[in-house]
Amino acid sequence: MSKKVMILPGDGIGPEIIEQAVAVLKTADEKFSLDLEFSEGLIGGASIDAHGEPLTDAELAKAGECDAVLLGAVGGPKWDTLERAIRPERGLLKIRSGLGLYANLRPAILYPQLAEASSLKPEVVSGLDILIVRELTGGIYFGEPRGIQTLENGEKQGFNTYVYKESEIERIARTAFEAAKKRGGKLCSVDKANVLEVTVLWREVLDRLAPEYPEVELSHMYVDNAAMQLVRAPKQFDVMVTGNMFGDILSDAAAMLTGSIGMLPSASMNETGFGLYEPCHGSAPDIAGQGIANPLATILSAAMMLRYSLNMGEAADAIEAAVSKVLDQGLRTGDIHTEGTKKVSTAEMGAAVVAAL
Amino acid sequence: MSKKVMILPGDGIGPEIIEQAVAVLKTADEKFSLDLEFSEGLIGGASIDAHGEPLTDAELAKAGECDAVLLGAVGGPKWDTLERAIRPERGLLKIRSGLGLYANLRPAILYPQLAEASSLKPEVVSGLDILIVRELTGGIYFGEPRGIQTLENGEKQGFNTYVYKESEIERIARTAFEAAKKRGGKLCSVDKANVLEVTVLWREVLDRLAPEYPEVELSHMYVDNAAMQLVRAPKQFDVMVTGNMFGDILSDAAAMLTGSIGMLPSASMNETGFGLYEPCHGSAPDIAGQGIANPLATILSAAMMLRYSLNMGEAADAIEAAVSKVLDQGLRTGDIHTEGTKKVSTAEMGAAVVAAL
Ligand SMILES: CC(C)[C@H](C(=O)O)[C@@H](O)C(=O)O
Ligand SMILES: CC(C)[C@H](C(=O)O)[C@@H](O)C(=O)O
Repeated sequence: MSKKVMILPGDGIGPEIIEQAVAVLKTADEKFSLDLEFSEGLIGGASIDAHGEPLTDAELAKAGECDAVLLGAVGGPKWDTLERAIRPERGLLKIRSGLGLYANLRPAILYPQLAEASSLKPEVVSGLDILIVRELTGGIYFGEPRGIQTLENGEKQGFNTYVYKESEIERIARTAFEAAKKRGGKLCSVDKANVLEVTVLWREVLDRLAPEYPEVELSHMYVDNAAMQLVRAPKQFDVMVTGNMFGDILSDAAAMLTGSIGMLPSASMNETGFGLYEPCHGSAPDIAGQGIANPLATILSAAMMLRYSLNMGEAADAIEAAVSKVLDQGLRTGDIHTEGTKKVSTAEMGAAVVAAL
Repeated sequence: MSKKVMILPGDGIGPEIIEQAVAVLKTADEKFSLDLEFSEGLIGGASIDAHGEPLTDAELAKAGECDAVLLGAVGGPKWDTLERAIRPERGLLKIRSGLGLYANLRPAILYPQLAEASSLKPEVVSGLDILIVRELTGGIYFGEPRGIQTLENGEKQGFNTYVYKESEIERIARTAFEAAKKRGGKLCSVDKANVLEVTVLWREVLDRLAPEYPEVELSHMYVDNAAMQLVRAPKQFDVMVTGNMFGDILSDAAAMLTGSIGMLPSASMNETGFGLYEPCHGSAPDIAGQGIANPLATILSAAMMLRYSLNMGEAADAIEAAVSKVLDQGLRTGDIHTEGTKKVSTAEMGAAVVAAL
């Protein structure tokens, strides 16, 4: 039975990097007889231009009928002056929430070939391999009530609600415990339980589940300390789990530790294994259309998709090995280029991965 | 007229480092005829042990009658099993809120003598000098409603409220604009306006005030990107301003960039210029009582106190120069010790600053 993959190129460099990832997927499809079936849709600015909103209900429904979604990136200055409710980012939030993609996996891996790109000292980051598990459909991102109101004295007040219930915490915690079990066996849960009640509950739920995962060593850390420890000694971490907002901040900081955010994929999944896969980086409007963007994060996102949502681990391994091979060959897009390596275009990089495959 | 300074040693290494800071202040007092009058009080675990709560109303009132407060640090494992409402940290939150200390200034400065201590590459951090202005008495730290409730289906739900009104944003924004005016003229306001309405209002207020400060170049950055940019290229920042929660996270990350958090002071002020001064680091219970803690952050906090709350800039300059001198002499406590420098105790470091003064 064929597996349906929906492609959402999005904006900025999205279409360019997606093109290469699709080429790699098609090569893997042939080589491993995966029987993939592709469809394409609109999200972000591309959808705003066509339909006046960043993700239509029809497109969302179509995505939900597929087995997985591969996304490029959304957003750009063209849509920055629009009313907030219909900006490109809202398309992302809508697909995450609409499909219940609560488990966001964001690896921060330092590729040994790219060790120099980090702003940290080599001894601090060499061998870095962290997985951040971020809750993606709850917390302050979606909490109600929210808005801006006018007080009696005439001044405005803005407010949002940071809210989690036990079941929401439990399911993301289980994702994280399972991931830690398969990796280094260490799970660090990040909260601010000395100040925020919602994270007191978070911590309670993690502690309650811990005995079910005797292979995993659970620890807790306050978010301010976690931000500090990521800078000071990131290799102390294996898997980190946290809520939507802290996860947004910490995963970006962790990704940047590697110095090559253009290399990092991400997965956002629901309990059925359905997932949305996208690079960690954004739409980089400043370099869009120039053919110089790094397609590897998107290619690696496609590999994650094969592994996690389509159960095609062998093909995923092959793609990851191909990426490692082109790095060994010294091929680099501008963002990861250093002296002594060969600067290549988006298309050349994609073609090299296809060839290595 | 004499100036009243309240000393709150607190817990852990607090008493040791405060002792050295007070010795330095007394020396400055004599040398510059400052006419300081000291009193001492209890906060944190020390107050819990004596009164069953981390800060009594009487102590809070006494602090409010002084001209400034110098604090060591609070907290430790001894009090970690207490009910949250009476843990040491609550004393800190109570004094901040009770005295209206909304403006928290946290410098992240790399001392050239300590450049090696950073986990970042020297070229990325050399000359680093950022000031983080954090709102300290509002936002999600104090927002209501908050708590943990049981839903109809029997599961628990935790919730907090992230709330700011215009006047709260305006006063901290003015603190930041003024600071930027006196420094490099650049102000970066950090928010998450693409997701959180409360920070949409934050951004609006900053934009509205900007024309009043034509000398200051205002920019806005999302908090995830700010966390990334602090790791990637921290020297792009001059002054950053943000809310209580983001400020907690970013100021700790920024402090850690320097690699020597044992060197960083902080000030928390209200509109009258009254302020609470404390080191950025915590109470370090693991090394308490050993006489090896670094007293310099507390000594530098005392200098900040003289400058900002007591209008004694000359004495503040002299203390800062004395600290720089002892670093030049190669004296280092354990936390900042590197090969080729001389390891000294807390007391020796304090005495060296007194001598240099
Ligand atoms: C674009 C934005 C809404 C989004 C988020 O905050 O989740 C992005 O920063 C991310 O991390 O995927
Ligand atoms: C101890 C804690 C309540 C406090 C805070 O979160 O404000 C601390 O982390 C700080 O930054 O001063």
